[in-house]
Amino acid sequence: MKYEYLTNEDLDIAVNEYIAALKSEGLNVKTEVIPVFEAAGRITANPVYAHICAPHYNAAAMDGIALMANVTFGATETTPVKLTPDQFIQVDTGDPMPDGTDAVVMIEDVVRDGDNVLLYSAAVPWQHIRQVGEDVCAGDMILPSFTEITPAALGAMLAGGVLNVAVVKPPVVGIIPTGDEIVAPCENPAPGDIIEFNSTIFSGILRSWGAIPKTYPIIKDIKEDIINTMKQAVEECDAVIINAGSSAGRDDYSSLAVGTVGKVLYHGIAIKPGKPAILGFAKDTPILGVPGYPVSGIIVLDQIMRPVIEIMTGRNLHRQEKITATLGRMMTSPLKYREFVRVRIGVNEKGEYIATPLSRGAGVVTSFVKADGIIDVDKDCEGYAAGDKVEVILLRPKADLDNTLTIIGSHDPIIDEITDILKRDNKDSVVSSSHVGSMGAIMAIKRGEAQMGAIHLLDENTGKYNDVYVNKHFPNGGVVLEKGVKRIQGLMIAKGNPKGIKGFADISRDDISYVNRQKGSGTRILCDYLMSQNGIKESDVYGYEREEFTHTSVAAQIASGTADAGLGIYSAALTYDLDFIPICNEEYDFLIDESAIGSEKIQSFLKVLHSDELKQRLVRLGGYETWD
Amino acid sequence: MKYEYLTNEDLDIAVNEYIAALKSEGLNVKTEVIPVFEAAGRITANPVYAHICAPHYNAAAMDGIALMANVTFGATETTPVKLTPDQFIQVDTGDPMPDGTDAVVMIEDVVRDGDNVLLYSAAVPWQHIRQVGEDVCAGDMILPSFTEITPAALGAMLAGGVLNVAVVKPPVVGIIPTGDEIVAPCENPAPGDIIEFNSTIFSGILRSWGAIPKTYPIIKDIKEDIINTMKQAVEECDAVIINAGSSAGRDDYSSLAVGTVGKVLYHGIAIKPGKPAILGFAKDTPILGVPGYPVSGIIVLDQIMRPVIEIMTGRNLHRQEKITATLGRMMTSPLKYREFVRVRIGVNEKGEYIATPLSRGAGVVTSFVKADGIIDVDKDCEGYAAGDKVEVILLRPKADLDNTLTIIGSHDPIIDEITDILKRDNKDSVVSSSHVGSMGAIMAIKRGEAQMGAIHLLDENTGKYNDVYVNKHFPNGGVVLEKGVKRIQGLMIAKGNPKGIKGFADISRDDISYVNRQKGSGTRILCDYLMSQNGIKESDVYGYEREEFTHTSVAAQIASGTADAGLGIYSAALTYDLDFIPICNEEYDFLIDESAIGSEKIQSFLKVLHSDELKQRLVRLGGYETWD
Repeated sequence: MKYEYLTNEDLDIAVNEYIAALKSEGLNVKTEVIPVFEAAGRITANPVYAHICAPHYNAAAMDGIALMANVTFGATETTPVKLTPDQFIQVDTGDPMPDGTDAVVMIEDVVRDGDNVLLYSAAVPWQHIRQVGEDVCAGDMILPSFTEITPAALGAMLAGGVLNVAVVKPPVVGIIPTGDEIVAPCENPAPGDIIEFNSTIFSGILRSWGAIPKTYPIIKDIKEDIINTMKQAVEECDAVIINAGSSAGRDDYSSLAVGTVGKVLYHGIAIKPGKPAILGFAKDTPILGVPGYPVSGIIVLDQIMRPVIEIMTGRNLHRQEKITATLGRMMTSPLKYREFVRVRIGVNEKGEYIATPLSRGAGVVTSFVKADGIIDVDKDCEGYAAGDKVEVILLRPKADLDNTLTIIGSHDPIIDEITDILKRDNKDSVVSSSHVGSMGAIMAIKRGEAQMGAIHLLDENTGKYNDVYVNKHFPNGGVVLEKGVKRIQGLMIAKGNPKGIKGFADISRDDISYVNRQKGSGTRILCDYLMSQNGIKESDVYGYEREEFTHTSVAAQIASGTADAGLGIYSAALTYDLDFIPICNEEYDFLIDESAIGSEKIQSFLKVLHSDELKQRLVRLGGYETWD
Repeated sequence: MKYEYLTNEDLDIAVNEYIAALKSEGLNVKTEVIPVFEAAGRITANPVYAHICAPHYNAAAMDGIALMANVTFGATETTPVKLTPDQFIQVDTGDPMPDGTDAVVMIEDVVRDGDNVLLYSAAVPWQHIRQVGEDVCAGDMILPSFTEITPAALGAMLAGGVLNVAVVKPPVVGIIPTGDEIVAPCENPAPGDIIEFNSTIFSGILRSWGAIPKTYPIIKDIKEDIINTMKQAVEECDAVIINAGSSAGRDDYSSLAVGTVGKVLYHGIAIKPGKPAILGFAKDTPILGVPGYPVSGIIVLDQIMRPVIEIMTGRNLHRQEKITATLGRMMTSPLKYREFVRVRIGVNEKGEYIATPLSRGAGVVTSFVKADGIIDVDKDCEGYAAGDKVEVILLRPKADLDNTLTIIGSHDPIIDEITDILKRDNKDSVVSSSHVGSMGAIMAIKRGEAQMGAIHLLDENTGKYNDVYVNKHFPNGGVVLEKGVKRIQGLMIAKGNPKGIKGFADISRDDISYVNRQKGSGTRILCDYLMSQNGIKESDVYGYEREEFTHTSVAAQIASGTADAGLGIYSAALTYDLDFIPICNEEYDFLIDESAIGSEKIQSFLKVLHSDELKQRLVRLGGYETWD
């Protein structure tokens, strides 16, 4: 490879050098002149001065008569001045002041006397007149450079006779998706196909920054094609993003193409995710090489492209709201890499923010959908302990967090359905749910990290659900157990039961591949209980170590043919059209911090929990019974 | 008039009744299905569920060999397992797992033995495999209803096989400008013409709320035309705004048109500005009558139309940042009217926010350009005293306020020029200047309301500028006087000097109409000083009471022919092409709170004050000299 990997480079230093290099190549805003009525939200390229005064004429500010003030001088309550019709003109509010007049006397103060009028007090010159330039004067600066044009500013410009305005021209950013395995979005991708959605994500991000994305067709891993497309893009666009899988074992012509068309400043930055980023340019056109995994791509765009687009758009894109949060659980981070970790933020009943790290897989784009913020973990930091205070860069407005109901614990689709119903009723409502299993819920509430947990915990001795665990972990009370739903748990098996599975005990058969749930989940506890009842050892079960986090992901493995059986709820089997052997009717309940139970967000949640709309949705999902 | 003015109605009650009436008529979101790649920033109309799993196949998560884990069982460091070529397949990261394999052994752990391989530890089923549904599983809810679609959500949807999405259709809002005196924006309006810029302001506001504005041509005050256009708009749009001057003395067919096409719920709300608002509807189409003055219009839109658009767009438009500020000066407010007062916010050196009310004229649209926030003054409140704590609804991000340099005091265009240069250097920079005159600057700094003031105060005894005043008002120091510029003050007179004015003393001539500056301004003090030197009494000067707040507005009055003379700086005379009789060379300086002088914003300001770029701009403005 012609271009060396310059890893371990500090991100901030690399970005500063990149910006400096681009500026020395002449990177700057481009400008265009557009009609004012199209300029809302645009950024001024120059100061805007008023051409005319607004108002541009002197106008009556009251209904009454216009006159020269000096004809009224000497008028008092005892010695009125009489004016003849040639000395005054009737005016309405807004009328231009007639020539030869410099004051308005309000109609209330005018006493009619035939065709004449009597005035009992003198007028002051220029009284009750809206004067030229009251709003803005010709020559005044209406807006300085690099200022966002608000709707009111549009009005001020038009009032000031400014019909066209020089604004920053939004930069066109080319996006080149590359890769042999990449296919356009579709509903039936073949195994090995990677759906190309990065360019759609990047387009959305660029648009939100005020740039104009231009996506090129997918280019196969053919050196000449990549170089030619890059040449074309550099000619047609103000900046270029090349998106490529950069993992070892693949062809990677990205840096070669950047180096051929322009210059590679860095290839490889010590960040995680996003290490294989390429910082390059051709003259004043920035070219950014972005890794193929979506999360890496988003981070690289955010960290490296944003400051570049900021220069090109004249906008402030770096103002981000930050909060201090308590870390809900331990989080390790590799040394020598600056890591960006997505987190969910919950608010406990004391109003403290609790951050829970989300999946760190670079391919898990939903982690960005669920994320409320990002923790920027320094290169020299090995991570944080549970309870540590961390700074979180927010991805949503702080007001949204304060309105968020955090539900932690066992996974069930009804939480999503309740979330949806709440949102339809009240657009302010936000529910944040983390699937950490039933035991995770109990621990989180004990630690004061969540107000509500979802649990289904079977007591092996009594055969009863939840109560025993709650009493054990909260001997002094402080929590309320709100009955949720009954749901059918059972063994999910492939459609038509090709392996003739008769019951749970068959999971120990040599020809059966099992898929399990994660430790601490109620379903895992149920599995272990059933295994002990049936005298099955862990080593008897092929796939016991294969852990999934939700019912649907267990069902998905069975549906994809890579597992023969797994425990899960009936609705998941139904979604994936699987056969199902019912085992028990579980009680899936909500554990609520007693001090939070009166809060509006929890009361709204409980209202929906007992609503007819939810009942109808549960019928559609299948396998549920309600308590009322 | 067929429809009664229902004034004194409480705004909140009126809006709640209006919303309730509209909802009972069936007002709701409309929806449309669009391709996901066009959906960034749109609002989901329904919950979005994944159609397929992402990833949709099991893939190797490492480079290595794929195999069935059970063939490796029993392998240890001392007893390796030997695999023949039919038992394993080489895979790269991302490759789909070959049929009949369920684990990947990393290439580092594979020992070659001819065509065979040796493994020294057993593989666990499903190790190093990126499993189906790691990101999202078919059937999982990706987004609930009424949720803004982020760029990452676009990726999650496409990954989940969702190619089209049901979103809220943005409502089309018709805007009908009416009035005989209304003309389209132009550079040379005739006296009496009112430039129609409200529809441009309203369009910008509606767009920022996610609605689509549709502006109709200007309609004259002809009853039938207004009714017909209203009928057309109700058919073509989802909501309608009719914009009309509603002051007495004019024809006002707005409420008649609303009543003919639909129903008037209220006409007249006890708010200031904005009283003549009309709340009407035709079936489920809201129709809002908006007063003609731009500030009234903006307030009415914000208070009454926003909650309606919120329902129609499914967006949260009511989240507004609020701060508590100290009122810089007394502010009265009429009883029986709820008043919305625009304010500028400054930050003093203690980090406290100081609110200064701006012009309350309903026609002063620049007050909205300058405003940082709005104070919502209750009907029952007669106003506030200086120093009172008030709640301010912010119109800009709070972060902008914290970056703002507040300059209070005398007006000079160089402040605007410095503001512009600062903005070009650093887009974060915000300068907020209030023209309250030189004495106002001294008082504001004494009260700790501003960090910097602009002054030019002539001491009559010494003939020197500024020092005497500073020493008198700050006997214990605490402030720094930074030399600004020298500028030529003089008498501005009409081009060609038609009245043959020879010097300042001529302002007392009977045939001369004077225009003055406001009390407390340095130029007013100069005027009074010159008058006393020349033995001129106030009553000798026709127009002494006519007060303007800036040099340009004095020049504008003279240029418009309504005054013969006024004191002002040379650059203002130059802008308006006026004749000019120089009187003195003033020292226009900056008074700075000593504790703030080291701050970055003040240092940046001073750097620009002494910059070559400013010097070049001063040459262009004319009449300035610098100290260095």
